[in-house]
Amino acid sequence: MNLAKVIGTIWATVKDENLVGAKMQIIQPLNHDEKKIGDPIVAVDTIGAGPGEIVYYTTAREATIPYPTRIAPIDASIIGIVDRIDIYRNSN
Amino acid sequence: MNLAKVIGTIWATVKDENLVGAKMQIIQPLNHDEKKIGDPIVAVDTIGAGPGEIVYYTTAREATIPYPTRIAPIDASIIGIVDRIDIYRNSN
Amino acid sequence: MNLAKVIGTIWATVKDENLVGAKMQIIQPLNHDEKKIGDPIVAVDTIGAGPGEIVYYTTAREATIPYPTRIAPIDASIIGIVDRIDIYRNSN
Amino acid sequence: MNLAKVIGTIWATVKDENLVGAKMQIIQPLNHDEKKIGDPIVAVDTIGAGPGEIVYYTTAREATIPYPTRIAPIDASIIGIVDRIDIYRNSN
Amino acid sequence: MNLAKVIGTIWATVKDENLVGAKMQIIQPLNHDEKKIGDPIVAVDTIGAGPGEIVYYTTAREATIPYPTRIAPIDASIIGIVDRIDIYRNSN
Repeated sequence: MNLAKVIGTIWATVKDENLVGAKMQIIQPLNHDEKKIGDPIVAVDTIGAGPGEIVYYTTAREATIPYPTRIAPIDASIIGIVDRIDIYRNSN
Repeated sequence: MNLAKVIGTIWATVKDENLVGAKMQIIQPLNHDEKKIGDPIVAVDTIGAGPGEIVYYTTAREATIPYPTRIAPIDASIIGIVDRIDIYRNSN
Repeated sequence: MNLAKVIGTIWATVKDENLVGAKMQIIQPLNHDEKKIGDPIVAVDTIGAGPGEIVYYTTAREATIPYPTRIAPIDASIIGIVDRIDIYRNSN
Repeated sequence: MNLAKVIGTIWATVKDENLVGAKMQIIQPLNHDEKKIGDPIVAVDTIGAGPGEIVYYTTAREATIPYPTRIAPIDASIIGIVDRIDIYRNSN
Repeated sequence: MNLAKVIGTIWATVKDENLVGAKMQIIQPLNHDEKKIGDPIVAVDTIGAGPGEIVYYTTAREATIPYPTRIAPIDASIIGIVDRIDIYRNSN
């Protein structure tokens, strides 16, 4: 799983039928210092993350698990809203 | 999922039997500012995206879901045509 | 599988229901000389690795196997605590 | 899927029993202009691609689909021989 | 699949129960000229590759296939020992 910030959303009328009703957020992957890593990606959001919130997301097959039907062409999914990040002393 | 632009197509006579009839588009991955990310890839298109259209696509196992038989050696699939991209203010 | 050091942990109240109770560690991937490779990621820990310990972890679908229900949106999992790394002479 | 050129082959006597009889080709990934992308990989070939031919290949789980038993430790498979690549005008 | 050289091994007492008895080798990925590509990874070895030998390995879900129980959190597995690599003339 990786950290990311919710930075936008995508609108699409023509799409695969399994995605009708799914909220597609644009998220910017971050490292544990909340610095950007690479380019933003598109992720399904089933937990209701708001603009600017820090979340963590999962990729690949497991990304369909939070989705109601679990049969959808989804490869990234927001799975938690981060309250706090603790870095252990002397471990880094 | 990632954004991409449809930039070409591929023709192949000799191919795996599960791919007969599949439309193979060449797509250029883009970031949310529509700048190119990396090299184009080949994706199956079941929703009828046209030349130059901005789409989003999925990769890996989920990529077979839009495909009629769902049993095909497909690792990238176009799943939506993008109408609009909204970037939240102050979130980037 | 790759090597990593446990460097922190993440707290999240709002999350996918399958993740309630799961310990989410921040781990820094390392090479076999224990130098950092890329950015830290978030991994589920079911074996009880402590702060600063060297572990190895697995990614993708197999990452759910150590998890009790095996149905969870997990894409990285700590699977062993490293006691010793041997590099063969003259092989490197 | 990605494009590649067939550049070599690998011989192995000691191997996983599921791979006995499989033809292992060395392929050089290419972009749509037929320029090299990254390093060559090893792919199973079930369609009989010849030396120097341009093919497209699939990776990950789907790569086992063209293989007779479909139970084999295969992560890359040649699935088509390219006849022609069309790039749409003004789309690139 | 990719090529690699066996360069070391890892010892771990505390580990996922599915991995008890598994031999974990450290392998250095190589290109077809036997030059190093990226950092070494950890792979399960079920075919008995020795120190310094050139092997090829598979990643992701297929990596569990050579493993006796086929239910293990494995994402890389050695599947063949390379006898010879042939590069086709004029194809590179």
